[in-house]
Amino acid sequence: MGKEILGCLDKSKLDVTKLRIFGSERSAGKIINDVTVELFNVDGARECDVVFLAVSGDFSLEHAEKIAEGEDGAIVIDNSSAFRYNPEVPLVVPEINAEACKGSKLIANPNCTTAIALMALWPLHKLFGLKKVLVSTYQAASGAGQPGMDELFEGTKKVVNGELDVAENAIFSHPLPFNVIPHIDKFMDNGYTKEEMKVTWETRKICGLPDDFPVSCTAVRIPTSRAHSESVVAETEKPFDLAAARQALTDAPGVSLVDDITADPPIYPMPLTATGKNDVEVGRLRRSEVFGDNGFELFVCGDQLLRGAALNAVLVAEAMDEMGEIEAKKVAST
Amino acid sequence: MGKEILGCLDKSKLDVTKLRIFGSERSAGKIINDVTVELFNVDGARECDVVFLAVSGDFSLEHAEKIAEGEDGAIVIDNSSAFRYNPEVPLVVPEINAEACKGSKLIANPNCTTAIALMALWPLHKLFGLKKVLVSTYQAASGAGQPGMDELFEGTKKVVNGELDVAENAIFSHPLPFNVIPHIDKFMDNGYTKEEMKVTWETRKICGLPDDFPVSCTAVRIPTSRAHSESVVAETEKPFDLAAARQALTDAPGVSLVDDITADPPIYPMPLTATGKNDVEVGRLRRSEVFGDNGFELFVCGDQLLRGAALNAVLVAEAMDEMGEIEAKKVAST
Repeated sequence: MGKEILGCLDKSKLDVTKLRIFGSERSAGKIINDVTVELFNVDGARECDVVFLAVSGDFSLEHAEKIAEGEDGAIVIDNSSAFRYNPEVPLVVPEINAEACKGSKLIANPNCTTAIALMALWPLHKLFGLKKVLVSTYQAASGAGQPGMDELFEGTKKVVNGELDVAENAIFSHPLPFNVIPHIDKFMDNGYTKEEMKVTWETRKICGLPDDFPVSCTAVRIPTSRAHSESVVAETEKPFDLAAARQALTDAPGVSLVDDITADPPIYPMPLTATGKNDVEVGRLRRSEVFGDNGFELFVCGDQLLRGAALNAVLVAEAMDEMGEIEAKKVAST
Repeated sequence: MGKEILGCLDKSKLDVTKLRIFGSERSAGKIINDVTVELFNVDGARECDVVFLAVSGDFSLEHAEKIAEGEDGAIVIDNSSAFRYNPEVPLVVPEINAEACKGSKLIANPNCTTAIALMALWPLHKLFGLKKVLVSTYQAASGAGQPGMDELFEGTKKVVNGELDVAENAIFSHPLPFNVIPHIDKFMDNGYTKEEMKVTWETRKICGLPDDFPVSCTAVRIPTSRAHSESVVAETEKPFDLAAARQALTDAPGVSLVDDITADPPIYPMPLTATGKNDVEVGRLRRSEVFGDNGFELFVCGDQLLRGAALNAVLVAEAMDEMGEIEAKKVAST
């Protein structure tokens, strides 16, 4: 995740004059991108204009507010779920609600599954008004970080090379190679997983929808490497119009309409094509057989580590820079 | 498919006194299960009491009715989609509508995705009354037969062993290893695939629901071997009751309730556990966050080649035997 942020920063519009990297005792002293990793300390972090936190929720809970507090604190963009549901902390997908950052020193970066789905849903919400949203996910091993990707790859290798009938597992609850695990994050009292409820909670907050707006998700881990796919069905207030929807998705920043079922081979979103791409791929767009004229179905695929995490965080910083929020922090610090 | 039918017949309650296997010119003369394969001919097939057709839709269209016609024709159980939507031909999942076979000589075996979903949905339909059904699938390579399974396995091997960055594809429209392909069967004018519409059409017919009953599906191929998984959401007429639903699924023939999210590791349906099993696994059962009290969500996983095809066909024959239909054919022939 940290590595992905560095990659996104490198390509960003931000004028990075000085890059500092903080890490644990284990990482301190290592050199990454010509920068010697410093042992994390709040005072050092506060000296920065913008701090990207790619750490555990517990670490964020302990330190994020201390880094951001006061006029001379740093702008903190936190990738954990620690502050996402705090009404004082904006939860931001820049293409949707960048203005929510205004005046805030601590910004939460959304869950990857939510961010990817909302890139497709937001332009359609503006056109037709969402009434209900149902999501089923096809999530990559990268959601469990590099160890998850390694477990999938090494396990698969042992199975196809005949060393094992069934792969071993330590990161995932069950073996992932050639399997499907309908379980990501811990289970809640309502029978949903926390990953699934994040999609419900975060969709409401980011899109400014009511607290009881109906969104549900089934989050499923599948044996792919780093792009998440999602099957999405929505009921809409206004009748769905396919041509208008296609135009809105074509015009939407951060979205690639990848939808030509008449091509040979047909074109639709896939991890194979979405991996490493900043834009989220949207396709299989059609009127819903269940919700009739007032509904649509689509398939979306996005790089979990980019739109789902690092890219979104860097785009938040870019948006805050454009709004003068970073300059304001610099002025306050000097 | 033929091999799977032989396996299911071997374990069935049917008293198979003579087994004949018919094949193409390429297969004729080969010995399978101590039986020499005969070159297919209608007259030979008509001599049998029950004929299982594991052939293309075009072959079935040409021959199925000729094998079944007249009082002395054979009972034909056709696995293709050729006759599924013919109002004269019963489309049967024995646990749901076995009685529809009565008096028919030609029976259609349903699409695998539909049959697997309906094993879970039928007991809940009887309890709560289905109003809307939404399905997203996670379908295995076996849906494209042994060549599909081979393409996945061999392609995966080349990728993990570093021979190729991206696997080659001939059977599937795109490379399947570490990828997701939201496309099975051909595309229809409404933007759905035929595989997706089969779920809509066949659910209505098998469950005796109205012709406009709302069912929709997104059918997705994923890199697993031979069990299909499905994420299912339903709106219901009556309020959903979790305890009653669990009891109904526990009591339902052909269903295993595999649902303990408090276990370590948690227990839910997975291809790893559903493969090779006659019963369809159902779990992740919960009240729907979208449809509230009048809805549920669940995850189902079933062996595509068993419940999705061969087992269902053999269970149709067993049901017809119990109803005296096979005896009636024998009497008519003598």
